[in-house]
Amino acid sequence: MKLYETFELEFTGRKLTENWARVDVTAVFTNGDTQVTVSGFYAGDGIYKVRFLPEKTGIYTWKVSGCVEGEGSELCEPVVPGSAGAGTDAGQQADAGTERGQQADAGDGTEEHGRGTGAAASGKTAQTAPAVGRAAVRGQTASFGRTGRGVVRAVGTHFEYEDGTVYKPFGTTIYAMMHQDEELIETTFQTLSSAPFNKVRYCVFPKHYDYNSNEPPYYPFEKDAEGKWDVNRPCVAFWDHFENGIRTLQGMGIETDLILFHPYDRWGFSELETDECLVYLDYLLRRLAAFPSVWWSLANEYDLCRKRTMEDWYLFEEFIAEHDPYRHLMGNHNCIAYYDHSRPLITHCCMQTAWMEKAADWMARYRKPLIYDECCYEGDLPQNWGNLSGFEMVNRFWQANTVGAYCTHGEVFLSGDEILWWAKGGVLKGESPARIGFLRQIMEEIPGPLSPWTEEYLEPEERKWREQGEKMFGHLKKSLSEAELDALTRKDMDFKGHLGEQVFLVYLGRRCNALLPLRLPKDHCYRIDVIDVWNMTRETAATGVSGAVNVKLPGREGMAVMAVEEK
Amino acid sequence: MKLYETFELEFTGRKLTENWARVDVTAVFTNGDTQVTVSGFYAGDGIYKVRFLPEKTGIYTWKVSGCVEGEGSELCEPVVPGSAGAGTDAGQQADAGTERGQQADAGDGTEEHGRGTGAAASGKTAQTAPAVGRAAVRGQTASFGRTGRGVVRAVGTHFEYEDGTVYKPFGTTIYAMMHQDEELIETTFQTLSSAPFNKVRYCVFPKHYDYNSNEPPYYPFEKDAEGKWDVNRPCVAFWDHFENGIRTLQGMGIETDLILFHPYDRWGFSELETDECLVYLDYLLRRLAAFPSVWWSLANEYDLCRKRTMEDWYLFEEFIAEHDPYRHLMGNHNCIAYYDHSRPLITHCCMQTAWMEKAADWMARYRKPLIYDECCYEGDLPQNWGNLSGFEMVNRFWQANTVGAYCTHGEVFLSGDEILWWAKGGVLKGESPARIGFLRQIMEEIPGPLSPWTEEYLEPEERKWREQGEKMFGHLKKSLSEAELDALTRKDMDFKGHLGEQVFLVYLGRRCNALLPLRLPKDHCYRIDVIDVWNMTRETAATGVSGAVNVKLPGREGMAVMAVEEK
Repeated sequence: MKLYETFELEFTGRKLTENWARVDVTAVFTNGDTQVTVSGFYAGDGIYKVRFLPEKTGIYTWKVSGCVEGEGSELCEPVVPGSAGAGTDAGQQADAGTERGQQADAGDGTEEHGRGTGAAASGKTAQTAPAVGRAAVRGQTASFGRTGRGVVRAVGTHFEYEDGTVYKPFGTTIYAMMHQDEELIETTFQTLSSAPFNKVRYCVFPKHYDYNSNEPPYYPFEKDAEGKWDVNRPCVAFWDHFENGIRTLQGMGIETDLILFHPYDRWGFSELETDECLVYLDYLLRRLAAFPSVWWSLANEYDLCRKRTMEDWYLFEEFIAEHDPYRHLMGNHNCIAYYDHSRPLITHCCMQTAWMEKAADWMARYRKPLIYDECCYEGDLPQNWGNLSGFEMVNRFWQANTVGAYCTHGEVFLSGDEILWWAKGGVLKGESPARIGFLRQIMEEIPGPLSPWTEEYLEPEERKWREQGEKMFGHLKKSLSEAELDALTRKDMDFKGHLGEQVFLVYLGRRCNALLPLRLPKDHCYRIDVIDVWNMTRETAATGVSGAVNVKLPGREGMAVMAVEEK
Repeated sequence: MKLYETFELEFTGRKLTENWARVDVTAVFTNGDTQVTVSGFYAGDGIYKVRFLPEKTGIYTWKVSGCVEGEGSELCEPVVPGSAGAGTDAGQQADAGTERGQQADAGDGTEEHGRGTGAAASGKTAQTAPAVGRAAVRGQTASFGRTGRGVVRAVGTHFEYEDGTVYKPFGTTIYAMMHQDEELIETTFQTLSSAPFNKVRYCVFPKHYDYNSNEPPYYPFEKDAEGKWDVNRPCVAFWDHFENGIRTLQGMGIETDLILFHPYDRWGFSELETDECLVYLDYLLRRLAAFPSVWWSLANEYDLCRKRTMEDWYLFEEFIAEHDPYRHLMGNHNCIAYYDHSRPLITHCCMQTAWMEKAADWMARYRKPLIYDECCYEGDLPQNWGNLSGFEMVNRFWQANTVGAYCTHGEVFLSGDEILWWAKGGVLKGESPARIGFLRQIMEEIPGPLSPWTEEYLEPEERKWREQGEKMFGHLKKSLSEAELDALTRKDMDFKGHLGEQVFLVYLGRRCNALLPLRLPKDHCYRIDVIDVWNMTRETAATGVSGAVNVKLPGREGMAVMAVEEK
């Protein structure tokens, strides 16, 4: 068992032919005063699995209980757990240290895959193999890819892995990634392995839409006798295949922002009844919740899902919260009407909009991280959501990131092969990914999350002028409507962020300043970097400066200025 | 006397040393049942002038009456006018045709400058020379520059000269143009003579602001004994010089959008009392109203004029309307709070904003022409109103013009000479003017004003889908706030205009379509032009097409597609 790594127990038992979505298998994992109960799932062919994600160091003991329905629908008696059992204590007694991010040698032998040791249930039917076990979990670093830092959490308006490392999402969108043939999926993974993205947004259900018309190789459910999808019979081949995608991405350090529902459908998955949705979610959570890299995106364009009521979404929120012991991130993505991101179970603002100037307001309002998960895509489509220039896609990434919000990429180029990245994956053709990589490198160098920089370190004279202006003309803004005020803001505002007094960043976007007046703290020394976000250059314009600094710029679009404290 | 050309009568009389702003000289010009009363002005050195702008063909008779205040403050008796008098009937009896734009030989000798013929006043003091006269006015075309088409009028949401020719403004801004030295003014005129602009926005009063700090050569008033500006003693040298500017621009076909008040002042002109303002306006109107090319812009940033109340602006509107017999265009320019463009005397919407997407809404709301008279300037300043790229300036021009609104240029480059075009004139350094010229050429080829194109000629199947979508999801928009709805509009909208079924124009702005589906009427044939607004190319992509047309595009920013009916 490794900290922040999926731990799996496998049992053999009775082969099921009906209703295997919600098998009665439960495991309780105990570590000191922490107790986590997880549900197992039927993995097909008489295999039952229990997955668990250890989130703290120490000694875990577990017990597995329950059974599948017997022939006579009788239930097993749960096994009374021992406090230490048949599990192998594969590691040394772990340090009790609970400090997050603590490093320890991960090379110690650990039980990565627990196989039921045959402690038979005392129940009447013995299809499942209840087990008790014990394992030591030591803090560790990820020696490969994603595993090793734990689930990503919302902390204030930014994200951190469970181990405390700041996570800055640089996502991309490949809605039907897992519904393509193996060769294309392999190409996509190959592309992602050298792309700048650390999150992929994609759907569980196949997608039917423009440029998405192929039949998927698998469907998430089998059909009943009348040819209707039977949510009680999840298609094991689908889920095996699907979770391999998550596993592969996780190995590359890429989070899976999993879209649980969406409206673009010709198969009927968007028309499930509410109780069917819960059965689907239940199986999904049993299988996937123990992957550290998954996020729950309740929907893509929840508001276009005609079959769903608001009560459904609220119910799904609660159901997931109840059935996900690890509290993965949860958001809901809109088309027209923003979801209510203030709801307590919603961890972050997942937004479709190109209203980049609004980020600071929304972050102040929701006090949650904000991801522009859809702000149109780089490409050349006739549809207006799909014809941003590479520059404009990059521009939006910088606008979001500068103030401490985040942005998600997508790419839609009409081309001979009819494979649009945003739909199916494949290879990237656009000009933005390289620049997004350049941005990511800069953002990851900054030793913490940025926040909107609203308080300038003005000279007393400048402050006086500013205040006088506000006093004389501030009332004029009160006469404006919300949209008029917003138009004024868009015309005048800068994108400015900071990390305490360590880093100040101004992104000028389409502005072509030859000069930028920066007003920095007087009691620290700064290095000033001039960054060309498109040409990916970064030059030091000054060192050892503080207070009022006027930075010379080349007078073209796409420039940023960063002041970094010198120590 | 020429149609649409300033006619001037000049008299000699007593030299005045006090209070010459409102001399008691009035002229009545009669042509059939049209009677126009105008006030004369003191032109200094004992010269009195009366100016008149004939706006219809036929025989004009005039009488001039009144006098200046005598030594004993006694007033002259007005002369009783004859129905035909001492004026020379220099032309033939004019055609009675009142058709606007009617052409006739302008080469006939006409009395261009009426000098008082000495018909002495019967009053007690004879400082003024009341006169009666008669002249024939024939319709004519302008053989040079601007004179000859009459005052520009607002007609619906567009502009026409009095003679019915459509006028599409392509303005620029040179706030303190007339407050520079002669050499610089000459350079500015030289630049304008080959620039694409047919309107210049500039101030009567000198301007004190960033990059505007030089002392002007003249001031509009003389000072009183206490060193205070005396509005009753207009500085004749100022006004002679100032009106020469209007005359020169007019000769080049350029309208003068005259800014009557503004807040950027260190001399005290923004602090005049309300009644002083009226004296100033009175003299200005006596001198300038007969120039066909002037427009009244009540202010630049009226809302920042601290001394002025809303009642002042309303009073100025009324005063101008009463004292301007030609009803020149009148607007009022904001900084933050838009002026109420629905006021009856306001002829058009003069706006400072970069909210280009709002044009169609505002035009529908105000049913008046809309000029984005300040949407930021091309340049490289640190101030955010002054650092648009050339492309973005051009982009805004196309966005406005495509839907039948208008846009105004300005240029602010930091450079060695410290002469910023927007402040002082000089030479143009930016990249936008050439492209604005290219746009103007296209706009002037279109045989009428454009309007927003909102009704597409959809195929029945497309219409069905559109309507279904609206039915299913239209309600979602109702849940949005004004600003949220606006953000959605900005993300999705196209800039589209049309002239009846003759011309359809789609401007794609920053969108990079490789394909544009156009839905044209089926019962006309069209030529399709693909326009690159930056590279200034225009290629015919198809001829003889109608109905549904898919236009191939190069997939880069700055493209427009125009369909022109073939006959």
